[in-house]
This record gives sequence, C-alpha cells and structure tokens, in this order.
Amino acid sequence: MSEKNSPILSFWFEFASTYSYLTTGRIKSLADKEGIQLEWKPFLLGPIFKDQGMSDSPFNLYPTKGKYMWKDLERRTAKYGLPFLKPGIFPQNGLKAARITIANLDKPWIYDFILEVFKVEFSKDQDISDVSVLSMILRSLGQDPENILSYSESEENKKKLRENTEQARSLGIFGAPSFIVNGELFWGDDRLEDAIEFLKKVDPN
Amino acid sequence: MSEKNSPILSFWFEFASTYSYLTTGRIKSLADKEGIQLEWKPFLLGPIFKDQGMSDSPFNLYPTKGKYMWKDLERRTAKYGLPFLKPGIFPQNGLKAARITIANLDKPWIYDFILEVFKVEFSKDQDISDVSVLSMILRSLGQDPENILSYSESEENKKKLRENTEQARSLGIFGAPSFIVNGELFWGDDRLEDAIEFLKKVDPN
Repeated sequence: MSEKNSPILSFWFEFASTYSYLTTGRIKSLADKEGIQLEWKPFLLGPIFKDQGMSDSPFNLYPTKGKYMWKDLERRTAKYGLPFLKPGIFPQNGLKAARITIANLDKPWIYDFILEVFKVEFSKDQDISDVSVLSMILRSLGQDPENILSYSESEENKKKLRENTEQARSLGIFGAPSFIVNGELFWGDDRLEDAIEFLKKVDPN
Repeated sequence: MSEKNSPILSFWFEFASTYSYLTTGRIKSLADKEGIQLEWKPFLLGPIFKDQGMSDSPFNLYPTKGKYMWKDLERRTAKYGLPFLKPGIFPQNGLKAARITIANLDKPWIYDFILEVFKVEFSKDQDISDVSVLSMILRSLGQDPENILSYSESEENKKKLRENTEQARSLGIFGAPSFIVNGELFWGDDRLEDAIEFLKKVDPN
C-alpha cells in the first residue's frame, strides 16, 4: 500500500475525543484522493491533560464550552454525513480500543475497526471500554476477538501505546486530533486541510 | 448601509484575542461579497474567563497549547495576508480600545480603527492600552483623539461595554471570536464560513 518516499501525514487520535471522530470519518478518503500516505497514531490524552493540570476533559471542566462543543459536533457530523447521538458518558475510556488498534495497524480491517469504535461511541451510546462491545465490532469484521484481545492486553503491546503517548508529549501534542508533517504540528479537525497543504509544499511529488 | 430585513451576522470580538485579529482581517470583505450585514460586538473576555475559573488566557495557563497557538497564528496570518509579529506582552488590555469602538460603531472609520488596533498589537508589538498608541491610530484616520477618548471613558459609554459583556455571557459565549446568527452560536475563526452558511439557510433572500 505504501510507496517509498511518498509524503506522510501522521494522524494522532484518541478514542475519547469527539473531534477525532470527525477526522476519522473523513481523513481516509481525503488522503486517498490526494495520494497521501497516512500514519495512524493512537495515543492517550489523559496523561497529557494531567501534564496541563487537568483531571478531566476540558469540555467537562468548562461546561459552557462543553455545551457548545456538543452543538458544534451535531452540526459538523451532519455536514460530514456521519451519524451522531450524544453519549451518556463522556469522556469514555478508550484504552482497550487503542491497544487493539496499535497491535493491528498493519491489518486491512483496522480502519473499519477504528471508525466503527467511534461510531458506536458517538452515535449508539455504547461503552467502548466494554470488552463485549469491542468483541462485537471485531466479529462484525470477521475477526476473532479472543485472540486479538489477548495479544492487545500483553505487556509488549501495552508498552507500544505508552511509547506513542510519550512520543506525542515530546512532539508538543496537547490535544486530539493532531497532525504531524515533517515535524510540524497541526491541531484540530479544522487544520487537516492545512496539514495536507503543508505536506504538498514540503514534498510536491 | 444596512437594508431592513437583510440577514445579520453578529461578530463578537475581544481586542486581546489573537484569533479575533484573524477574523477582523477577513470578515468585512467576506460579508460584502456575500451581501451579509455585520453587527460588530466588542466585549471583554476577562470576566467570562473568570466565570470559568481562569485568571489568565488559556494560552498562558496551558503553555504547550500557547506555544502551538503562536505557530498557528503565524501560519494563518500568512495565509490571510495579514502582518504578524509575536507581541512581547500577551494578553494585552483591550479595555480602552473596546470603549472607543463601542462609542463609534456608526462611524465610517470604525472598521479601519478596529483593524489597525489589532495590527499594531499583533504586528508592531505596541501596547494597545496606551492612550498615545490609540491617539496615533485615531489621528491617522483623521479623527480628534481628545474628544473621542473623553466620551469613550464616560460612565454612559462604559456601561455599554459592560452590557455587551453581559449579553455575551447570556448568549453562552465563552471565547472569541464568536458569531451569533438567529440565536445560534459559532465559535472561532474556523467557524465563520459555517455561520455564513447557516445564515443563508435561515434567510435565503
């Protein structure tokens, strides 16, 4: 799938993040159209919010902003043609889903898995930390949940996710979604187009 | 200038706000092109940040985010063709500039005044709370600073700005720039196009 020397856009996302859902819903077709190679980088925002002295999502810490965010998300999912239903729990714990993802980034079904996790979370009010929910998604993609969950919870794999989060921190990432092109950081679904434009300037091939 | 019954987009801005500069630099030509009537609403973010428990700009409270914001602003001003130089002091005190603005919203020179205040702040590292800086801008627009400053600091006019800030709060505004169309809130320079699109749906005339 990947060509050597083709430009790379790293997409840093967190399963708890509403705006990561928006980007996941549109980045693949956009990258395909533009001939851009994507690198999918799941990470955890919790430790990074803690660095900033936040023990919860800023959308909960600042309720006026949170109220607006849900309205904005409703409008934007409609604009992008994505299903939406405000979940009962926010933020959800995306740890297990992130571990499954990082263990299977080379699999052809992984994009469908990622998008489906976001969809059950933000349009079906299901709990993505629930093993039975994740198993159902894996089965719907023709995969064996038991094998996949067992490896994804191994020490070796847990370490990979911790390393991604460490790398995010060292890159100056403070929220999700974020994009890195040639070491340059772009934050927010609204900056995806800027990141692509920047990538084309860096490598116009 | 204004036609009765033509759609109105209220633009809520704060002179201390970096992203309000971006919007100010592009909203007038965009609104003219789209045939949209603008309502300019200066207000103060300080009291609204205090409601959220913040005693400083979030870009100072969260330095990693702040560092990114300046980089993003550099890129975006370049994109919009606006001059930019990171100021030594941030955030600045926009109180006097906001009072001058609210007292002169019906004047033909007020847009040039607003944009010039943002420009000296974010591209010339000048202090916009300094009366001599504001006077220089007013003189460059052919206005008499003494008369204008005297009225803008009157109790009657101070009250108008307090009322705008109160109104912002009651509309659920938590940051700047914000846009209100038909009671619906849009936040951030990135949502200007969405606000315009919404306005056209509400009133397609």
